[in-house]
Amino acid sequence: MKASYYEGNRTFGVRESAIQKPGRGEVRLKIFYCGVCGTDVHIFQGHMDSRVKIPQVIGHEMSGEIVELGEGVERFSIGNRVVVRPLSPCSRCPACKAGYSHICYNLKFLGIDTPGAFQEFWTVPAYTLHRLPESVSMKHAALIEPLSVACHDVRMGEVKKNAYVVVIGGGPIGMLVALVSKNKGAQVFLSEINPFRLNLGRELGLEVINPKKEDIVPYIENKTGKAGADVAFEVSASDSGVETVTKLVKARGRIVIVGIFSNPAKVDLFRFFWRELQLFGARVYEPQDFEEAISLVASKSLPLDILISEVRPLEELHDTLRKIESGAEGMKTLIDISM
Amino acid sequence: MKASYYEGNRTFGVRESAIQKPGRGEVRLKIFYCGVCGTDVHIFQGHMDSRVKIPQVIGHEMSGEIVELGEGVERFSIGNRVVVRPLSPCSRCPACKAGYSHICYNLKFLGIDTPGAFQEFWTVPAYTLHRLPESVSMKHAALIEPLSVACHDVRMGEVKKNAYVVVIGGGPIGMLVALVSKNKGAQVFLSEINPFRLNLGRELGLEVINPKKEDIVPYIENKTGKAGADVAFEVSASDSGVETVTKLVKARGRIVIVGIFSNPAKVDLFRFFWRELQLFGARVYEPQDFEEAISLVASKSLPLDILISEVRPLEELHDTLRKIESGAEGMKTLIDISM
Repeated sequence: MKASYYEGNRTFGVRESAIQKPGRGEVRLKIFYCGVCGTDVHIFQGHMDSRVKIPQVIGHEMSGEIVELGEGVERFSIGNRVVVRPLSPCSRCPACKAGYSHICYNLKFLGIDTPGAFQEFWTVPAYTLHRLPESVSMKHAALIEPLSVACHDVRMGEVKKNAYVVVIGGGPIGMLVALVSKNKGAQVFLSEINPFRLNLGRELGLEVINPKKEDIVPYIENKTGKAGADVAFEVSASDSGVETVTKLVKARGRIVIVGIFSNPAKVDLFRFFWRELQLFGARVYEPQDFEEAISLVASKSLPLDILISEVRPLEELHDTLRKIESGAEGMKTLIDISM
Repeated sequence: MKASYYEGNRTFGVRESAIQKPGRGEVRLKIFYCGVCGTDVHIFQGHMDSRVKIPQVIGHEMSGEIVELGEGVERFSIGNRVVVRPLSPCSRCPACKAGYSHICYNLKFLGIDTPGAFQEFWTVPAYTLHRLPESVSMKHAALIEPLSVACHDVRMGEVKKNAYVVVIGGGPIGMLVALVSKNKGAQVFLSEINPFRLNLGRELGLEVINPKKEDIVPYIENKTGKAGADVAFEVSASDSGVETVTKLVKARGRIVIVGIFSNPAKVDLFRFFWRELQLFGARVYEPQDFEEAISLVASKSLPLDILISEVRPLEELHDTLRKIESGAEGMKTLIDISM
């Protein structure tokens, strides 16, 4: 079979690879589509070389179909259309024991710490699978993993109908957080500086603000009757985003940290005291977030097609990563493994 | 009557002052004791001159008795022993309307933004009063205001029986947070570097750690079976406290920011993401916190006498503030207004 390998040194290349027979409790999937994630770009850039084994197949935003069952797999059948929740928890650590296996202290992430889905067939544990309804296309299904991240973030934010929500950063996750919040009946404001993303946000029906052109703090104050937003999501992982976010939120409001900050950031803790602000770290997803994402896709209530900028063959994964890295216009690129 | 006035320029002085007749909805209190708060020290140091009118009587950690009723006061009688919850909210702002009047956007704090209790008689709105049970002494009652802060903080931390709790900073509020947590059945660790406070913490039955002598991160890891603490309170308002606190807490654990940070502090937001940590700003108290503090004092379950370092007359308020500022040994000084 074909597989695209990360070979280190900013290089991906397609090679012939052996099919891996599913072991006990595992299944082998035929992969249809696999989206390119920001994490994949980080891996391409070499930032995660200590975690990834070289050469390695990566990728985790996929859709697929079961083509082979390992021993002891009972809840699934050959032909089932599925997505993978790519988490392998240890089940023994304090987080697992407390019921938070998605933030397991020894978590392995499929497609980063183990081989991934940028290949024709992918062998994974059956406990990672979520079944797809007939109405969900394989292309849309490849968006379920990032959409599950957004569903998790929005759940942590406790976004309610008519709530005022600000999303700082309009990349794929920020856009999805904004869309999921809007779908819950919230009044959503998206803060972004990139013109392409601002236009896309507008096209998706979001109220967009460019904080380089307009001071977002009085803007949100005015929109919320001087109260401040109910919930704000920091998805930009920028110092300016963190500086702004504490000024946007109402008394006892919720701030969700979605962006991944490599370095400590300056936070106005006085503002946390003064308004009794609350801050929540949010990481990946729990099974219920995948179920919610699948229902959302099945309901066709999100404009997902607008988010898919390109569909390219596996051979072009290398070029796709370079293009994303260069900051070219685009939101989500899917790799069509069958192409 | 006697009153101690802040006269600016690091000076307090006792003067003769006119008794203020209670207006509609107000009462006049005879003050018994008034504790010296860290905020009073800040005022003495001139840090709050923009907020305080000079000359002004300050002070808010008091116990007293009603000696005169203004018109329309029905729930109280002359002779009632009371404490004051020294908050005057606007009742119109978004926080007040949302039920969070203690963090009112236009909050006035009695004894800072208005005259306070370092005087023989204090005239206040009746809505600020909480009645004292007979079993509560006037001396202990002067600790109810700071104890209410601690009750509020512990409530925001959702401290439960058998929880592992770390308190960073063993000043008066940190000590009370530790004692209230212990009283809830938590296993409490107090981190402090001052030898006097370390000894006092030990005397109060707390497990104390000096982070200058022992690395607190592995210490708490070992004490919690590698999980991390359930709740941590940052009461030191120090950069090192903030740096440490994110390393101490378990997955989905709660951090409560009690210390007042004048400047933004560097916060490890990656750790918030990685462990889905939660951070809560906590400010003053709500009525239920005062009721809890009064019940706690009435139950005599806290070793409050150990916390009262000194009782001094009103004439010595100036010297007391200088002594506290100098970092002299001591925890809480009460001013006996009747002395």
